[in-house]
Amino acid sequence: MSGTITEKILRQHIVEGKAVVGEEVALKIDHTLTQDATGTMAYLQFEAIGIDRVKTELSISFVDHNVLQTDSKNADDHRYLQSVAQKYGLYFSRPGNGICHQVYLERFSCPGKTLIGSDSHTPTAGAIGSFAIGAGGLDVAAAMAGEPFRIKYPAVVGVKLTGRLSDWVSAKDVILEVLRRINVDGGFGKVLEYFGPGLKNLTVPDRATITNMGTETGCTTSIFPSDEVTQKFLKAQGRGEQWQEIMPDEDARYDEIMEINLSELEPLVALPHSPGRVKPVREVAGLKVNQVAIGSCTNSSLRDLKVVAHALKDKTVSPNLHLTVSAGSRQVVEHLIDSGEMKYLIRAGARILENTCGPCIGMGSAPCSSGVSVRTFNRNFEGRSGTKDAQVFLASPEVAVASALTGTLSDPRELGDYPKFEMPDQFLINDNMIIEPLPFEDAKNSKVVYGPNIKPLPTFSPLADVLKGEVLVKLGDNITTDHIMPAGAKVLPLRSNIPEISKYVLKAVDKNFSKNALEKNGGFIIAGENYGQGSSREHAALAPKYLGIKAVIGKSFARIHLANLINFGIVPLTFENPGDYDMIETGDFLEVGIGDLQGEVFLNNITKGTKIKLVHTLSPLDAKILKVGGKLPWIKKNVAN
Amino acid sequence: MSGTITEKILRQHIVEGKAVVGEEVALKIDHTLTQDATGTMAYLQFEAIGIDRVKTELSISFVDHNVLQTDSKNADDHRYLQSVAQKYGLYFSRPGNGICHQVYLERFSCPGKTLIGSDSHTPTAGAIGSFAIGAGGLDVAAAMAGEPFRIKYPAVVGVKLTGRLSDWVSAKDVILEVLRRINVDGGFGKVLEYFGPGLKNLTVPDRATITNMGTETGCTTSIFPSDEVTQKFLKAQGRGEQWQEIMPDEDARYDEIMEINLSELEPLVALPHSPGRVKPVREVAGLKVNQVAIGSCTNSSLRDLKVVAHALKDKTVSPNLHLTVSAGSRQVVEHLIDSGEMKYLIRAGARILENTCGPCIGMGSAPCSSGVSVRTFNRNFEGRSGTKDAQVFLASPEVAVASALTGTLSDPRELGDYPKFEMPDQFLINDNMIIEPLPFEDAKNSKVVYGPNIKPLPTFSPLADVLKGEVLVKLGDNITTDHIMPAGAKVLPLRSNIPEISKYVLKAVDKNFSKNALEKNGGFIIAGENYGQGSSREHAALAPKYLGIKAVIGKSFARIHLANLINFGIVPLTFENPGDYDMIETGDFLEVGIGDLQGEVFLNNITKGTKIKLVHTLSPLDAKILKVGGKLPWIKKNVAN
Repeated sequence: MSGTITEKILRQHIVEGKAVVGEEVALKIDHTLTQDATGTMAYLQFEAIGIDRVKTELSISFVDHNVLQTDSKNADDHRYLQSVAQKYGLYFSRPGNGICHQVYLERFSCPGKTLIGSDSHTPTAGAIGSFAIGAGGLDVAAAMAGEPFRIKYPAVVGVKLTGRLSDWVSAKDVILEVLRRINVDGGFGKVLEYFGPGLKNLTVPDRATITNMGTETGCTTSIFPSDEVTQKFLKAQGRGEQWQEIMPDEDARYDEIMEINLSELEPLVALPHSPGRVKPVREVAGLKVNQVAIGSCTNSSLRDLKVVAHALKDKTVSPNLHLTVSAGSRQVVEHLIDSGEMKYLIRAGARILENTCGPCIGMGSAPCSSGVSVRTFNRNFEGRSGTKDAQVFLASPEVAVASALTGTLSDPRELGDYPKFEMPDQFLINDNMIIEPLPFEDAKNSKVVYGPNIKPLPTFSPLADVLKGEVLVKLGDNITTDHIMPAGAKVLPLRSNIPEISKYVLKAVDKNFSKNALEKNGGFIIAGENYGQGSSREHAALAPKYLGIKAVIGKSFARIHLANLINFGIVPLTFENPGDYDMIETGDFLEVGIGDLQGEVFLNNITKGTKIKLVHTLSPLDAKILKVGGKLPWIKKNVAN
Repeated sequence: MSGTITEKILRQHIVEGKAVVGEEVALKIDHTLTQDATGTMAYLQFEAIGIDRVKTELSISFVDHNVLQTDSKNADDHRYLQSVAQKYGLYFSRPGNGICHQVYLERFSCPGKTLIGSDSHTPTAGAIGSFAIGAGGLDVAAAMAGEPFRIKYPAVVGVKLTGRLSDWVSAKDVILEVLRRINVDGGFGKVLEYFGPGLKNLTVPDRATITNMGTETGCTTSIFPSDEVTQKFLKAQGRGEQWQEIMPDEDARYDEIMEINLSELEPLVALPHSPGRVKPVREVAGLKVNQVAIGSCTNSSLRDLKVVAHALKDKTVSPNLHLTVSAGSRQVVEHLIDSGEMKYLIRAGARILENTCGPCIGMGSAPCSSGVSVRTFNRNFEGRSGTKDAQVFLASPEVAVASALTGTLSDPRELGDYPKFEMPDQFLINDNMIIEPLPFEDAKNSKVVYGPNIKPLPTFSPLADVLKGEVLVKLGDNITTDHIMPAGAKVLPLRSNIPEISKYVLKAVDKNFSKNALEKNGGFIIAGENYGQGSSREHAALAPKYLGIKAVIGKSFARIHLANLINFGIVPLTFENPGDYDMIETGDFLEVGIGDLQGEVFLNNITKGTKIKLVHTLSPLDAKILKVGGKLPWIKKNVAN
């Protein structure tokens, strides 16, 4: 492989390891971002490391998740985040300013930079030619402390785009087509790198929809070149000087090629409960819809909302459903007001929500019981909407607005002519809700404010050579981080209180999991394929660790969650023979000999009297981190040296 | 008394009883309204009565309270409300359309009509010369079934307004001045009827702020004449033909007179935790503020938000606090967008919420721990904001915006020149989010949709002649309905599930109240003065009834709550000698001989061996209703006859 964008950017950032697919490399990180649901924990960890100022070029703390504020917890967390940002030299984007990925793209993203963010949709910035990866909060804390970020050097899938999207077909359909082809685990260990003549017809926000939801393939990240389209976007954001061209070499060699002819795409939809269950809309059209929700970091750009506004102009939302619209940023809202297009939305009966993640993370706007909800979001895991038995369909803004008007899941091509609208040459720029870092001297004297719900970090001991305990639960394939550690309006406010949030671990699967785990002094989780798909939330490792989980033994793991397990001292092990999964049941007592995690790992099933061989993909460094009890003690030791 | 507006309207609506202050009269009700937090129960009760269509001229069901939707319950309730409105001939205002009082004022209110609404701020419509009263949901259900509504014929306080408000002083300061003078119980049994030369300088929305928050005085209602100002407003709403002049006669005699010189007023603020603790802002200025919240049915009109927008133009909200703005209706929002003033709000950093009650009822936007919140709302009861230890100050939009800019509680006169802005001659009219009643033939065939959280109404038995039980709790003065039956994002979704919501009764006062009450098969509540002040929520009677509360024995009761107690078969009794309050303690076992509630009532304190004389203000009809177990069985019997 040579001359891909991925290679070019990584080459400039590798500080350790070799650029060989599958080998661990350590990357210098230029930028970091956090959002509030993962951020409080990331900054508590950063504080525990003991550095007096972030060592990155740029670190930003956003507030976009926990903004319902049904009690004081969210507001206390926001106050903590603002104060900790001031103390340690970060930018702080105030609540109401917009969704982290949208605002980062508009105001901070930069071609050629590396970014890690404590949100799985951080790859959104790949739209601008940034190498942007989702990570656990602890990894972000480490990066802020100057530590490099370690990944397996990825294979690069060249996604060749040709042709041009038809009317009523948009960027969302491109990424849905990718998901239709490679499903929710087809991207594992890979970068989806877009190239080809179709690119020039995709704006940066279009590209951002694609890189954003690329996350759902399980890939390391997605990336676009930095070309003239990119330059135009940065100029329109008043940041033309930050542009640099980053194109693949003409003879760039990709590990794989996937070709998509944009002209052949039609409106698509992902059926409940997986972003990978993709069908043409026409095959499922006519289903009665109870709710349409437009927005989220996937589809909340000015272009997206302009399409929706024009489709709604002089019409009324079907009386059978509710339509919510949440813009990605204040910039988007200002434009819609200036152009008068916001009025089309309001006159049609759209419920305008704050510029936040909102319904996408179950933060309000839950559908009615058994409700069908068509959403422009990136995930439709069971229960994530806040309604256990809701049926969530993922689609483009075009499909969403067509459905909002008809009351049924609808192919937007039935709406007639595609709306004509103008995009501005210059965006409206207003950064007054972004608080800049304090000069170091002032920062030293500023105080961090903790709310009563912000509890001290639990500490964990080094791992024994033989782990002993009961199998607390045996799970199937594709268990998501929403299963392991639910989000939503009730649980998210507990993100800075580990003892409290741990009560919700795997609750949807086993109501008594948390109680049992604590009573039995922990034990093991048995999992199928792709354990931990979904969000970057490290609470899905930290909270099980708090409950005493010693190892997760599964068929395979999702990338970010695997890293989180290592970070928090839970050993991720796989069956050498996947069929051995069938030889273990809930309640079995196990002894797992891990030694120093550098040699063979055996599992003795004491209950059944059987012995199973386990393997792992841990690097020697991972093994050391695990053995000392996780990454936080490891980094503290490093920094102390 | 003769020739007041109150007298003129009531004269046309009395169907039983005499227009003598303090005597019970039955009124024909022209209009009813409900909101969603009280509405589900009201319609369940209406369905239980067994009528096939509402018998009022106009009945409207609004959705404005429970719109966060953190799970399926709210959406299920909204679906129920929409379906029940269609079934029984009501208008339905869809979620997102606005706050009931604001939308009713804009689109439905009519001079000279009677209105009851299952929301304590229903008197807002008094701004237009409507006789509008807050009532329990069951009373609204009864009115929809054609039953008259009974009140004690009120005394009329003539509030004479002279002069003209200064710059930066507004309608909110008028009602705060009224509250400063007569406190939260000074209006009991009275109508506040405004007159005098100062009136002409107050627009209908100004008047609505005054009538709205008049509720906090405990009055029956507040009312303004229907004059040229009223005519102008109705014309601007495209409803000029619904205007009729209703002025007091020149020789109108009021039971009392209160005079307010508008020119002498200055910016005022109500301190925590009572709307009656009013001081000039300048006396408390400088206090650090954590949050400013503008909106609610008190101050969310176009005028209010225009003032705020212009004060914020080209400025930025203080970094020390958050500013939320929630408009009262879509009409207000459309105007602000058309005029560009919405952009001033957004550019300054205001967080724009949905057009709903929002933070006023603790439905999101809770302040941080111990946070100081300056709100343009009407209530600041302890804990109502969602944050137990928050300090909520009630003030005008002018004071709120000044505080938002400075970061401290501020006298707005320091901002300099008062903003100049235009009010439209014609409002933007768009009723597409109001679903009209179905014709009777279609309605008959439409179906009511119940969600799984909508539980059947509990039924209650007739009362014994001697009530026996323990004193479960002894309370102080001014216990609010928020103490008895909390609202907020966690509890409001349970409004159609009595067994579940009952767990929260008096929880802030006694964590185990609900459990104890059920275990002891109910008992008695001992209360001080003004028990049940605040909201119209009948759940504050219905849920205690479900727990087995037999009587509340107090020094005095708030009007709507008193009616709710009767409606649900809890006997409201007062001490003949208020000092006897001191002779009872929690845990005492009582026998209360009520007989047929037409004669003397004695209390035997078995524990203490003492005997106390009790009295009540029940009419013979009230007594009958109580004895059969409440109003629902009573009406069902009536309708059956």
